[in-house]
Amino acid sequence: MRLDNLQIRLEKIRSNKIFELFVVCVIIFSALVIGVKTYPIPASVLKLIVVLDWLITFIFLAEISIRFFAEPIKRNFLKNGWNVFDSLIVIISIVPIDNSELAIVGRLIRIFRVLRMVSIIPELRLLLNSLIKALPRLGYVMLLMFIIFYIYAAVGTTFFSEINKVLWGDIALSLLTLFRVMTFEDWTDVMYETMEVYPFSWAFYITFIFFTAFAFLNMVIGIVVSVLEEEQKKVDREHGEPTLQELQKELLEIKALLHAQAKDHKH
Amino acid sequence: MRLDNLQIRLEKIRSNKIFELFVVCVIIFSALVIGVKTYPIPASVLKLIVVLDWLITFIFLAEISIRFFAEPIKRNFLKNGWNVFDSLIVIISIVPIDNSELAIVGRLIRIFRVLRMVSIIPELRLLLNSLIKALPRLGYVMLLMFIIFYIYAAVGTTFFSEINKVLWGDIALSLLTLFRVMTFEDWTDVMYETMEVYPFSWAFYITFIFFTAFAFLNMVIGIVVSVLEEEQKKVDREHGEPTLQELQKELLEIKALLHAQAKDHKH
Amino acid sequence: MRLDNLQIRLEKIRSNKIFELFVVCVIIFSALVIGVKTYPIPASVLKLIVVLDWLITFIFLAEISIRFFAEPIKRNFLKNGWNVFDSLIVIISIVPIDNSELAIVGRLIRIFRVLRMVSIIPELRLLLNSLIKALPRLGYVMLLMFIIFYIYAAVGTTFFSEINKVLWGDIALSLLTLFRVMTFEDWTDVMYETMEVYPFSWAFYITFIFFTAFAFLNMVIGIVVSVLEEEQKKVDREHGEPTLQELQKELLEIKALLHAQAKDHKH
Amino acid sequence: MRLDNLQIRLEKIRSNKIFELFVVCVIIFSALVIGVKTYPIPASVLKLIVVLDWLITFIFLAEISIRFFAEPIKRNFLKNGWNVFDSLIVIISIVPIDNSELAIVGRLIRIFRVLRMVSIIPELRLLLNSLIKALPRLGYVMLLMFIIFYIYAAVGTTFFSEINKVLWGDIALSLLTLFRVMTFEDWTDVMYETMEVYPFSWAFYITFIFFTAFAFLNMVIGIVVSVLEEEQKKVDREHGEPTLQELQKELLEIKALLHAQAKDHKH
Repeated sequence: MRLDNLQIRLEKIRSNKIFELFVVCVIIFSALVIGVKTYPIPASVLKLIVVLDWLITFIFLAEISIRFFAEPIKRNFLKNGWNVFDSLIVIISIVPIDNSELAIVGRLIRIFRVLRMVSIIPELRLLLNSLIKALPRLGYVMLLMFIIFYIYAAVGTTFFSEINKVLWGDIALSLLTLFRVMTFEDWTDVMYETMEVYPFSWAFYITFIFFTAFAFLNMVIGIVVSVLEEEQKKVDREHGEPTLQELQKELLEIKALLHAQAKDHKH
Repeated sequence: MRLDNLQIRLEKIRSNKIFELFVVCVIIFSALVIGVKTYPIPASVLKLIVVLDWLITFIFLAEISIRFFAEPIKRNFLKNGWNVFDSLIVIISIVPIDNSELAIVGRLIRIFRVLRMVSIIPELRLLLNSLIKALPRLGYVMLLMFIIFYIYAAVGTTFFSEINKVLWGDIALSLLTLFRVMTFEDWTDVMYETMEVYPFSWAFYITFIFFTAFAFLNMVIGIVVSVLEEEQKKVDREHGEPTLQELQKELLEIKALLHAQAKDHKH
Repeated sequence: MRLDNLQIRLEKIRSNKIFELFVVCVIIFSALVIGVKTYPIPASVLKLIVVLDWLITFIFLAEISIRFFAEPIKRNFLKNGWNVFDSLIVIISIVPIDNSELAIVGRLIRIFRVLRMVSIIPELRLLLNSLIKALPRLGYVMLLMFIIFYIYAAVGTTFFSEINKVLWGDIALSLLTLFRVMTFEDWTDVMYETMEVYPFSWAFYITFIFFTAFAFLNMVIGIVVSVLEEEQKKVDREHGEPTLQELQKELLEIKALLHAQAKDHKH
Repeated sequence: MRLDNLQIRLEKIRSNKIFELFVVCVIIFSALVIGVKTYPIPASVLKLIVVLDWLITFIFLAEISIRFFAEPIKRNFLKNGWNVFDSLIVIISIVPIDNSELAIVGRLIRIFRVLRMVSIIPELRLLLNSLIKALPRLGYVMLLMFIIFYIYAAVGTTFFSEINKVLWGDIALSLLTLFRVMTFEDWTDVMYETMEVYPFSWAFYITFIFFTAFAFLNMVIGIVVSVLEEEQKKVDREHGEPTLQELQKELLEIKALLHAQAKDHKH
């Protein structure tokens, strides 16, 4: 009975707007602390930051505990991916790290705490979810694009590896170089170098740019079209807009009624 | 009575097309004067320009006065943001500035007078308003993008600050460098430098480019979709186009009428 | 009578598909001749090219004459902008030019003959017309963009002209530099140079990129929306698709009829 | 009779999901082998790779044979472009090549085997078909763009060939340079060089960028519009959605019925 009382009271805290705002402020503050640490700072301020860091960690720990104990069914807590992410971030940042090798992990964890912004603001969570949902739609275009990249990388390595080991030394380097060509970043420098040996190698680059640009364009258009359609359906559903088919059904019923009446009259 | 007469006469001047055109011409002329001043010019022309400058300021002052006294209710004049902007620009350019430090402010004020073009042409004012209205729509995507930028900047500073102090020295420099990478501006130079120390740092850049490109794409598509929808609604409203729901209502009414008739006949 | 006969016969030639194809081939051939002349060629081939050049000019002259005499009302011939363009190109290329200064004009005229491709293929003419029609739509966005450019150029010249005379020397150079920044072409080199004197000048570039990117985006979306709408209207008109308003009118008429019947029955 | 039995049995194998998956795995494996070969590898592994290469070739040969003998009407096999492509790739890779000149052909054939991924996965085949179908739509815009490119290249060669032989030496080099300018790749370097001789040559580049950007934009919009329309039609057809015209026809029929009834009553 007492535990249930506590749970309900914690649930009230959790759904409190001020509590949420407070956590958002702490996250922003933790982001600022990360930013400040990248500047040269006097030792006294550094000490303050270490203290603040522990304070932030403690607040996060408290918040996660509240969220955990506020959950009526504890199993559901871990079913939510964001809860797992939050818990992991907080727990790892408590673990004391002395080893200098692992110190970098500690710093990274502190940086990833900024991502908690996404987990705490529902609109951002929704946005990210919709972004992730859009990914599979791109699946086959991405696969096709990768095949184009792979073939061009293999051809590039075969012909150009002797010309420039850094750019075309192996297939991984070639893939990176092709990605660079796709972003138009100094791609002519890459091209002029190989054109000195193979004067017709411009065809390699031009066709590659055409293929990737065309595939990319199709990807973008594909997303635009499907987003527009979904949006359209959502709008229609919201407004209770009937389909043209439903209207046609009504019309046919009216016609049947009229025909029945006409028949009645004749008798 | 006399004052009211003056107000009505000024209102007529203000809404006069020729008066408006004259002001636009003066603004264009003031823009040209600003342009001419950037070229090396003989002292005599410079003197002429100073005179012209004062003439332009005087005309602007007269115009603002006309607009102010033409307003029936003086309070409304300052409620319009553009009026406030215009008045400020004109008043500050009258203040005599001798200090060489502040001379630059005077020059800037003269440049910003070109912005009066937007405040005087209604179509431009409308366009700018619609642009500003489109901004909040982007709010959460911009926030998400900033979070991505901030995390990557923090990671970048952590790992690369020792490699290149100019590019990754602190979090502000890192943010600027990442913006540069997003515009594909010599981003491979940045990458190759860090790849010499961390051979796998290409993953840092490639994932960053993917995330930002994907978020940017979603932003663009979001705008396209919402603009298309608004446009659609506007078109429908203008043409008095009924919704399908309204048509369905009509059909149901007709059916009810027919059923009533059928019942009548049976009796 | 004889003249009319000739006109009708010429009109038949003009609308002949084979005649059109022949002219297209001559244009392509003239384009190839222009291309070949840019390579180092032996004197004998050069002589041949000069002869071919005159042959092409003669064929074009004959074709224009046919088109002119085929026109029933001679006045209409010059009303068509493409006819005027074609005639000018042909007539100027007949004028013998000895002066070496003007020789370049002769070469340019020969190059612009390739544009005759557009005037002869109806689909290309249509495409160009629709492109030109789309321009005024962009009018105000272009004006707004130019105002942004002008203000930034004036500010840039004021502050940076001492730093780099080549990039920011006067307002024309600054406009060119800003166009370069808009295309992201080595814009960081421009920025880092001014940041050495004004450490906060990055704000100048970042805000400029944001404003122009945003205005550009709006321009693109504006075109997409208006093209989609026009297309929609065209499709509707072609299929004789009625508007929802027309359907509503029909429904109201039916309802009126039914009400009239119901009234009839009561009597 | 026996042959027919074999054919049916082979057809079963061909349409077997596991068989398809196996072939896909072999293709992926062959792609990996190509990738591994670009790294420096010990002789023993190289020997293994040669063996694996022959194994892959053999599996492909077996697969093609199964697909060929599974076809009831042999003539149809070669009517499918993908079958011809697959057969060619496999047959050429069997031909033993000793000549070092031709060895490169053998390597290329092995690389192009990755393209078999497209021929085996139906979704990719569909995607590529739809991409290819979208091409002719772009025909006239591409032609217009090429005319723009050709004219600018001819003008560029005429004026700038003396300034930089490498960039503007002949019409082919000029076309390549203009493509580079279109991708904004170090285009200002190209421009500043010619501006030293012709101070107004910036107009050449700026107008070129405007024309190509405008034509490109129109191309993209053209694709978006036509894809959206097709999609719309497909959706309508799938849902059996009637057109507004059909609804209008129904309404007119109902009105006719009512008028007939009204007439009946009067008699």
